[in-house]
Amino acid sequence: MIRASIVGATGYTGALLTDILSEHPDVQLDVLTSRSYAGRSVCDVFPHLRIEGRYAPYSIQAVAQSDVAFVCYPHAEAHAAVAALVDAGCKVVDLSADFRLKDPEAYTTWYGFTHPRRDLVAEAVYGLPEVYREKIAGARLVANPGCYPTGMLLGLLPVAGRIDGSGVIVDSKSGVSGAGRTPSDKTHFCAVTGNFRAYSEVGHRHTAEMLQELGLAAGQGLPVAFTPHLLPVERGILSTLYFRPVGGFVGTDKWLELYRAFYQGEPFVEVCDHVPGLSDVAHTNFCRVTVREDKAAGVVKIFTVIDNLVKGASGQAVQNMNCMFGLREDAGLGRAV
Amino acid sequence: MIRASIVGATGYTGALLTDILSEHPDVQLDVLTSRSYAGRSVCDVFPHLRIEGRYAPYSIQAVAQSDVAFVCYPHAEAHAAVAALVDAGCKVVDLSADFRLKDPEAYTTWYGFTHPRRDLVAEAVYGLPEVYREKIAGARLVANPGCYPTGMLLGLLPVAGRIDGSGVIVDSKSGVSGAGRTPSDKTHFCAVTGNFRAYSEVGHRHTAEMLQELGLAAGQGLPVAFTPHLLPVERGILSTLYFRPVGGFVGTDKWLELYRAFYQGEPFVEVCDHVPGLSDVAHTNFCRVTVREDKAAGVVKIFTVIDNLVKGASGQAVQNMNCMFGLREDAGLGRAV
Amino acid sequence: MIRASIVGATGYTGALLTDILSEHPDVQLDVLTSRSYAGRSVCDVFPHLRIEGRYAPYSIQAVAQSDVAFVCYPHAEAHAAVAALVDAGCKVVDLSADFRLKDPEAYTTWYGFTHPRRDLVAEAVYGLPEVYREKIAGARLVANPGCYPTGMLLGLLPVAGRIDGSGVIVDSKSGVSGAGRTPSDKTHFCAVTGNFRAYSEVGHRHTAEMLQELGLAAGQGLPVAFTPHLLPVERGILSTLYFRPVGGFVGTDKWLELYRAFYQGEPFVEVCDHVPGLSDVAHTNFCRVTVREDKAAGVVKIFTVIDNLVKGASGQAVQNMNCMFGLREDAGLGRAV
Amino acid sequence: MIRASIVGATGYTGALLTDILSEHPDVQLDVLTSRSYAGRSVCDVFPHLRIEGRYAPYSIQAVAQSDVAFVCYPHAEAHAAVAALVDAGCKVVDLSADFRLKDPEAYTTWYGFTHPRRDLVAEAVYGLPEVYREKIAGARLVANPGCYPTGMLLGLLPVAGRIDGSGVIVDSKSGVSGAGRTPSDKTHFCAVTGNFRAYSEVGHRHTAEMLQELGLAAGQGLPVAFTPHLLPVERGILSTLYFRPVGGFVGTDKWLELYRAFYQGEPFVEVCDHVPGLSDVAHTNFCRVTVREDKAAGVVKIFTVIDNLVKGASGQAVQNMNCMFGLREDAGLGRAV
Repeated sequence: MIRASIVGATGYTGALLTDILSEHPDVQLDVLTSRSYAGRSVCDVFPHLRIEGRYAPYSIQAVAQSDVAFVCYPHAEAHAAVAALVDAGCKVVDLSADFRLKDPEAYTTWYGFTHPRRDLVAEAVYGLPEVYREKIAGARLVANPGCYPTGMLLGLLPVAGRIDGSGVIVDSKSGVSGAGRTPSDKTHFCAVTGNFRAYSEVGHRHTAEMLQELGLAAGQGLPVAFTPHLLPVERGILSTLYFRPVGGFVGTDKWLELYRAFYQGEPFVEVCDHVPGLSDVAHTNFCRVTVREDKAAGVVKIFTVIDNLVKGASGQAVQNMNCMFGLREDAGLGRAV
Repeated sequence: MIRASIVGATGYTGALLTDILSEHPDVQLDVLTSRSYAGRSVCDVFPHLRIEGRYAPYSIQAVAQSDVAFVCYPHAEAHAAVAALVDAGCKVVDLSADFRLKDPEAYTTWYGFTHPRRDLVAEAVYGLPEVYREKIAGARLVANPGCYPTGMLLGLLPVAGRIDGSGVIVDSKSGVSGAGRTPSDKTHFCAVTGNFRAYSEVGHRHTAEMLQELGLAAGQGLPVAFTPHLLPVERGILSTLYFRPVGGFVGTDKWLELYRAFYQGEPFVEVCDHVPGLSDVAHTNFCRVTVREDKAAGVVKIFTVIDNLVKGASGQAVQNMNCMFGLREDAGLGRAV
Repeated sequence: MIRASIVGATGYTGALLTDILSEHPDVQLDVLTSRSYAGRSVCDVFPHLRIEGRYAPYSIQAVAQSDVAFVCYPHAEAHAAVAALVDAGCKVVDLSADFRLKDPEAYTTWYGFTHPRRDLVAEAVYGLPEVYREKIAGARLVANPGCYPTGMLLGLLPVAGRIDGSGVIVDSKSGVSGAGRTPSDKTHFCAVTGNFRAYSEVGHRHTAEMLQELGLAAGQGLPVAFTPHLLPVERGILSTLYFRPVGGFVGTDKWLELYRAFYQGEPFVEVCDHVPGLSDVAHTNFCRVTVREDKAAGVVKIFTVIDNLVKGASGQAVQNMNCMFGLREDAGLGRAV
Repeated sequence: MIRASIVGATGYTGALLTDILSEHPDVQLDVLTSRSYAGRSVCDVFPHLRIEGRYAPYSIQAVAQSDVAFVCYPHAEAHAAVAALVDAGCKVVDLSADFRLKDPEAYTTWYGFTHPRRDLVAEAVYGLPEVYREKIAGARLVANPGCYPTGMLLGLLPVAGRIDGSGVIVDSKSGVSGAGRTPSDKTHFCAVTGNFRAYSEVGHRHTAEMLQELGLAAGQGLPVAFTPHLLPVERGILSTLYFRPVGGFVGTDKWLELYRAFYQGEPFVEVCDHVPGLSDVAHTNFCRVTVREDKAAGVVKIFTVIDNLVKGASGQAVQNMNCMFGLREDAGLGRAV
């Protein structure tokens, strides 16, 4: 049994990790840390979780005993804990942004802090198994991708080499859980229900990941116009992607064939004929994707859906752990999570 | 007092017209027709409407007595009633698509019927007062715009001449009332709540209006990539618009200035600094719009919101009637409608 | 013109008062105070309000110049401002609970503070116009009723004398705006959407008002079993009321007759045949009520709906102001507010 | 492996049964019948189900080959198929109401049809395992309880002998899936969102089951005042129950002790201290219940929550099947279903 700890276990991603790992056939839950709820029982804080155990204050000694730690701290706060755990010999899946970008200067530009551990930045593997599963298998430190980049990249990787230099439009719509559990004016029920709006409408930080990984896949830098919006739903991200194809228009069926071939054998990416909705993937680790050519308008449109908390965070983190420990990639990630 | 009738008064747009006109200071409600509810009282069918009166079966004789008729029939069914009423000397605001397109062949292409009244197609005025208010003032027949084109056009008119030949991306998100009152699998509460998806993902019929009116404003045909999505809300449309600017990047502030200048004095278009949400305009006839330049991505982004039932349908229809009868354009369209 | 100020104008009730009063034909808005938003403009804080003006810090001198002040402070904090304003000669509608209970000891029991102004407690009039409109007309201080008591009392007043000594069951379901604008775990969108639960399940403070006013109407004390629940909607309260009738069962029609007679001429209480939903009264000052006799079960059931922010708070406060200043009771409270 | 068929597999309960049984370790899905979707694949009709197979028209011969059939037809239509299958030697769990009532005349009174199979009415076992698991174990025909009675009975069984002769108030609030998948005015998204109302406000048919089973548990007939309401959520029923206790008030803690003792060892009933919400049990087969004594009001209040589609229908049906075939009662009903 793999002993797993969760650092920062009482946010949405931490709670879902607790839920998934508690049912994982190869995992034994170890330490669950919480700054705010130390001493309280899991089912007291989350009545829907039917799990024994209590939250503990964070202690490097206690967590480092585990085989793997999932770090669910905010960006700019996570890297210290991550580095200490890796240094102590514990494998880490970091759900923050602190090791996702390969250029150490990018942290200054996009996240406003000077990264103190360039060695680990270089070593960390970007945790998108559909691209990096071999590297993940040997990694000590996996940087779990952001929720928006996950959906966007799975939508564009098959065609990265076919995108015109004008780049891509990424129009994304996310459920409220993506904003985290901390109450605010913006997540008050009355501010969200019946409402819809864009936010961080230019320069959202996830753009950095998108630029990096799409550029690597395409073999050249490509502009990314990313606009996130807030949906009045709890969970899910739908991204509508637009690009102008190099090499002309081949018809929707051909694009679908290309996608099917690209993702053949992937356990968690489903290419579908119909246009998927959030409910296609809610509470699962699946990404669904389809393509439509709009020749009259001069663009190809791609639609991807994921559950932001599962494939966009905790489910993908478990998928990464499965890779790191040589398990089946879908272990513990059955039907509904 | 203007005597006004509503033909097809028991859909969402008909009910809202009934509500608005019943409080309009210059209007007296005349005949309300309904195929399904003839004989029943208004407040029996719509308990939230505190209005006297009963629905009547449609009769050209009865309706033609009115000074103006609002026709709320589906496309391809409206044109016969509209033509008969105009021929009988009644002014008409047609909320269907049957007189919006200037090219008579376009009805065959987009709506699948041969238009029998090319004379009225030529005569009808596209009812977007921000562009055509002088023509509307003298019109016998006004074709009330579609909900999506209304938001899209108000967002792009100020920059129509600045749009690069690659055209525009129109990523729109609409509330469920846009799909009408007839129950279906797709509007069942359980199919919509917690869900989000695109539909008519290539070639939605409203594209035809967008192409026509944007082309006229730009002085050249421009491609339009339009993608509507269904939001789990009752009301409202938010459109996120993307284009590549001819003449380069001037900064967000300059774009905002340009929009403010363009819409100065408009009673129902508000250019705002913040990114507006649906709740900014719910239950009002306002359109709110803002702009953001994303130079790194090579695009300008525009955000527009309207209430699809008000500025996107019944409110705009009343605004058109106000123009046709020489009233203040905002008569009867105060604060909340 | 009546000059009106709002003390604590940036909660939900203060914002709605601002909205209603800004359109009231006989009112001129004076000072809007806010602890958190002093100096900011109204439409900056509430983009949906299209109102000039800025929030000011609270100042007794400034507010006391007004003819009337609406105090929207929390209970136990309101009474000092209320007393100072009344002493300074300003009429006050207090939206807090601080002057609703006639027994000064009750504040200690139910609200945990010793009331310093027993004179004003004695003088204050309970602001339910359907019962006390004559007293309200001459009052300096009106205690605006709680949202739950408003719906419950309007449902039971017509039958207060017919209720068996076992008392009443008051099963109430409220929208989230009743919990106020301050963000919390309990009002986070993700905690509310798709969810439903009871809270304050025994001994909610509004029980005190219900006991007092139902007892006065019945001429005897009657037990009240009150259970509030939180609905995943923004606005509205539906209360389902149960009692065993003294004098036996007379049939639903007779009960409806009795209600219609009781409320004849009331501008804001509508007795209806159908079972009303929240949407019957959303954004209006109306209360709708119906009755059903369930003889087999030995009870009479009453259903009442109000909009908690309008008839349950700000609308009723304006209705009270209208009484105090000799205006038509529905002035400024038309169709949608 | 138990071979299981589902008759009427494309309603909400049929689809969920398909989902649960497809993952059940001891079950092999056999025939899935559908009148409307015969010939179509499961994942075409329900994109969120990742299950092979196609719907077939109903055929007694095909279904009777199975070891067990779940019949999901509407009341008054189910009994013929049920009887034919039982006669043919197939065990049946009937999700309709057609065999729930022990008095054959009751079908005439409550459901408007004359029951043709009094022998099977007598033989059928009411499928509430918490009461009848021994009888279920030997049954050929199990009548799966209604959703409302399930929540209500699990809330009242522990105190059935303590309820005063005035009976019980059952104030229930249900999600929309309880109304079934067929679209109607009442389940249109726009009719439900932001709304809340009672329906079938006197004499809902589930009252018959409540009267029968509560009476049996209490050893005497007890009046039941049942009022269902429609919540703007997809899933879940919360029932608030009120009764006057025989033998006086003992304090909330004593009532909780009594409930804990009564349900000790039950796999799917959880007595909790906190007041449970729908999210406590969504997508699970659990019922959560708590008690509060309101001595001042003279009543005891009980709160129960279930997922109407799981414990209120398909999950309980599988629990019954597990009993009938000697499996662990929670087989196939883990964490999330």
